[in-house]
Amino acid sequence: MKVGMLGTGTVGQALGSAFIALGHEVMMGSRAAANENAVAWAGREGERATAGTFTDAAAFGELVVLATRGVENEAVLRLAGPANLTGKVLIDTTNPLDFSQGMPPKLAIGHTDSAGEQVQRLLPAARVVKAFNIVGSGLMFRPDLGGLRGDMFIAGNDDGAKATVRQILDQFGWDTIDLGGIEASRYLEPMCLAWVTHAARTGAWNHAWKLLPAR
Amino acid sequence: MKVGMLGTGTVGQALGSAFIALGHEVMMGSRAAANENAVAWAGREGERATAGTFTDAAAFGELVVLATRGVENEAVLRLAGPANLTGKVLIDTTNPLDFSQGMPPKLAIGHTDSAGEQVQRLLPAARVVKAFNIVGSGLMFRPDLGGLRGDMFIAGNDDGAKATVRQILDQFGWDTIDLGGIEASRYLEPMCLAWVTHAARTGAWNHAWKLLPAR
Repeated sequence: MKVGMLGTGTVGQALGSAFIALGHEVMMGSRAAANENAVAWAGREGERATAGTFTDAAAFGELVVLATRGVENEAVLRLAGPANLTGKVLIDTTNPLDFSQGMPPKLAIGHTDSAGEQVQRLLPAARVVKAFNIVGSGLMFRPDLGGLRGDMFIAGNDDGAKATVRQILDQFGWDTIDLGGIEASRYLEPMCLAWVTHAARTGAWNHAWKLLPAR
Repeated sequence: MKVGMLGTGTVGQALGSAFIALGHEVMMGSRAAANENAVAWAGREGERATAGTFTDAAAFGELVVLATRGVENEAVLRLAGPANLTGKVLIDTTNPLDFSQGMPPKLAIGHTDSAGEQVQRLLPAARVVKAFNIVGSGLMFRPDLGGLRGDMFIAGNDDGAKATVRQILDQFGWDTIDLGGIEASRYLEPMCLAWVTHAARTGAWNHAWKLLPAR
């Protein structure tokens, strides 16, 4: 499968490398075609990894991953070109973090809106699935959780797209909990803030979520 | 210890019975002194269990638990009498659930406010700790989670009050994750909605939260 990655940060690199490890082709997109991070990453990952612009990566991907800073989603998606994403599964990993008051960050939007819903509004013809926003980049691919599998919570309006993401998550080492339509991003983005706040207070950034069933 | 319980529903009964099981005295408060649920509960629990009004229970408790419907917090706390709660630890278990659009419910407030903050504003002289809002009443006391301990997330402005609640949670079978000031209720109340939404979609209401550390 061809995967377009929008964003060259730690999340983009972690997920890009994971898709490469599973045998896929990945183009990492950024504002400039020759972005330093993207070119270096592609050099390390070999011939199935390439670098391009946001537009290039959006057009390249059969599946596209949004891995930019949440507050930049609109600007990035305009550069990517909504028409390049028509009908495609777009995994939204972002959180609308506001660092203006320092650490831990706050959410820039919430309760009556979310980054997930915003992304779906900006891309009405794409099939947006919120995923990967509730864990750190170091845990996204096959984390060692002491023999347990973590739960990745997802949300999205398209059941077919969520089935695709569920398969990907299974290969990435996660169980999936589907919270329904994309508006459930209003709960998933605060969950990110719960672990970020805990991590900022304790210095431990290595946590995955799990729902434990009581007997 | 004397525990005042504000609310006679499943949460009030579960937590009231838990405090009784640990040897405490509990008065269950409601609008009417002779509330049917409270009187029946006190009858089952024996001589350390009593029933009274919200005012009675607030005055009785050295520690007080708010276990009403979140959207009724203000009305209940006015009946309880803020002066009766001065200096006391008040555990806020509530979620501001709006069922007007059916199941799953939505949050009536969020992002820039929360039930936890609202309760602390209504009781400026009480030491409010958000706790128990992220699990169902059946799991609150010593849930059997297959040998694992669940994580209870808490928030509050008073470190001494949180130390008290942490001790209680330990006796109740929970590890505690402290997210800082009461404004972190903005994350804990959406976490409730995440599990409620999952439960409403799957019929499984028996989940506790756990943060799994990656190795």
